[in-house]
Amino acid sequence: MAEEFPMIGGDGPNSYAKNSISQRLAADGAKGMLVASIFENLDIQTLPSRPTTASSTIFRIADLGCSAGPNTFIQVKNIIDAVSQKYHQSAVELPELQVYFSDLVSNDFNYLFATLPRDKQYFAAGVPGSFHGRLFPKASLNFVYSAYALHWLSKLPQVLSDANSPAFNKGRILYGNAPYEVGQAYSAQYAKDIECFFHARGQELAPGGLMVLLIPGRPHGTLPAQGSLAPFFAPLESTLADMVNDGLLSEDKFDSFNLPFYCPSVEELRTLIEENGCFDILKLEIQAAQTPAYPSVQQCRAGMEGILKKHFGDENYRIAF
Amino acid sequence: MAEEFPMIGGDGPNSYAKNSISQRLAADGAKGMLVASIFENLDIQTLPSRPTTASSTIFRIADLGCSAGPNTFIQVKNIIDAVSQKYHQSAVELPELQVYFSDLVSNDFNYLFATLPRDKQYFAAGVPGSFHGRLFPKASLNFVYSAYALHWLSKLPQVLSDANSPAFNKGRILYGNAPYEVGQAYSAQYAKDIECFFHARGQELAPGGLMVLLIPGRPHGTLPAQGSLAPFFAPLESTLADMVNDGLLSEDKFDSFNLPFYCPSVEELRTLIEENGCFDILKLEIQAAQTPAYPSVQQCRAGMEGILKKHFGDENYRIAF
Repeated sequence: MAEEFPMIGGDGPNSYAKNSISQRLAADGAKGMLVASIFENLDIQTLPSRPTTASSTIFRIADLGCSAGPNTFIQVKNIIDAVSQKYHQSAVELPELQVYFSDLVSNDFNYLFATLPRDKQYFAAGVPGSFHGRLFPKASLNFVYSAYALHWLSKLPQVLSDANSPAFNKGRILYGNAPYEVGQAYSAQYAKDIECFFHARGQELAPGGLMVLLIPGRPHGTLPAQGSLAPFFAPLESTLADMVNDGLLSEDKFDSFNLPFYCPSVEELRTLIEENGCFDILKLEIQAAQTPAYPSVQQCRAGMEGILKKHFGDENYRIAF
Repeated sequence: MAEEFPMIGGDGPNSYAKNSISQRLAADGAKGMLVASIFENLDIQTLPSRPTTASSTIFRIADLGCSAGPNTFIQVKNIIDAVSQKYHQSAVELPELQVYFSDLVSNDFNYLFATLPRDKQYFAAGVPGSFHGRLFPKASLNFVYSAYALHWLSKLPQVLSDANSPAFNKGRILYGNAPYEVGQAYSAQYAKDIECFFHARGQELAPGGLMVLLIPGRPHGTLPAQGSLAPFFAPLESTLADMVNDGLLSEDKFDSFNLPFYCPSVEELRTLIEENGCFDILKLEIQAAQTPAYPSVQQCRAGMEGILKKHFGDENYRIAF
């Protein structure tokens, strides 16, 4: 079983719902790409559309790693608008729409359901579970979307906290500026996870279906150690280091902590998808980051509280923030 | 929008999960009937089963009004066992199974998802919303189940709390021993709700599909006023009456409160289903009550807390219990 580190639920001041503006900006920036990809690539003719057959007039959409903020509803609306236009343009009657909102079991589905748009034009369902495994029946989805979720690893490579390994990640909480072996350990875990993700989706997507993924990445031609994600977490890393220096935290506790996400380069991702073989790449585009240089403390907290509390305990978490 | 009065969520001492033994006993008692009805009536040949078509090898089950206790998983397992046997007997390969757990938005889906059986043989999804309206795409379900949920009305008839109406339900919280007009007002609302329920399900169920409903009812040939449900709530009714006598609660507040559920007689139900016309009745059986004569305070609380708190306020609720 993969470990779970959910975003902070509900809509309180520290919640993910109130602190996901970066993800929102990034999704807004990718809207044009999303709409264009549906418009250009969705194959209405291949999709089942015979009105006499039982379950054939349903278009099913899944948002994987939806979390529980407003972003997910905005992008789902964009997707539905684009799909509707495509059907309209093809002079095919729009099927009924069903949207699956999926995230880990620990996601705040109660909040998600309570905030579903009242004027939604689709049947909504929540699907709990890890997208590194199967979540849906075979060939049951027509469109899969996942934004800012695939960088989460299913687990951390054990070597990162093994003092005898060359991949021991001493004094760091991510792979930025780390030895080559650290980046490799992260990269290898990412490769395994992506393989599982594509394998599962390959079974779940129906013929003629389409998948659009927004994945945080690092610049082409860079090594993981040069990735652009590390600066985001530098303030957290130095706070923890200070706590070690001040004797508030043991060195072991610090050294055994690592953040479970990884950002591939575009070439690394292309190779993984091609080797996997379940999907053809129709388009692989780089989008410039829309986010400010550093996330606020609130933003960091909304995403990281679960994982930090689990490793360091409530007391140290309160000191760090 | 229908009002929502959810069961108490989670698994604390007052939760529905820990106080639903009556419903459990009743469901256990109906297991034989459930299994037999699937075995006798599920039409495997009509169900889509061509393995080459996209979404045709999926068998979809919905549990409507599932709440968040363990009962729902037990009955779903019974359903799946029976369906599997039926497929096996017909020498047709069992399709992949998808189970929709549906209840009001305010249901504790987080708890439901966290307690999903680890060894489940199906893909699970939660569907928030009222079963008095559409919840699923057309012809997308193969088996619909609902146990001890259909007695909940979508709303209370206004006449019950109208002092100028012959259906004014003064000094009572349900229709037991009430004037004829009170029972009629309840019965009329029930008829409207059942009509909506069957109309929605008629669209959602696929050809060859089947629906099994466990509905609390009252004995054949009795009027609503003679129904067997009132004694269950007599202790609550007399507690509230005592609070009025002691000056803790205003008479208006008491008189304007009524419980939003209704139990039809078997003939009343048969007439409603036949008039509705969306479904054929394959079997309509009366099952003797498996429950003790009176629910415990805990059981009453698990189901009624939401509705009582909303009408009487937290303070009076604490006094009553």
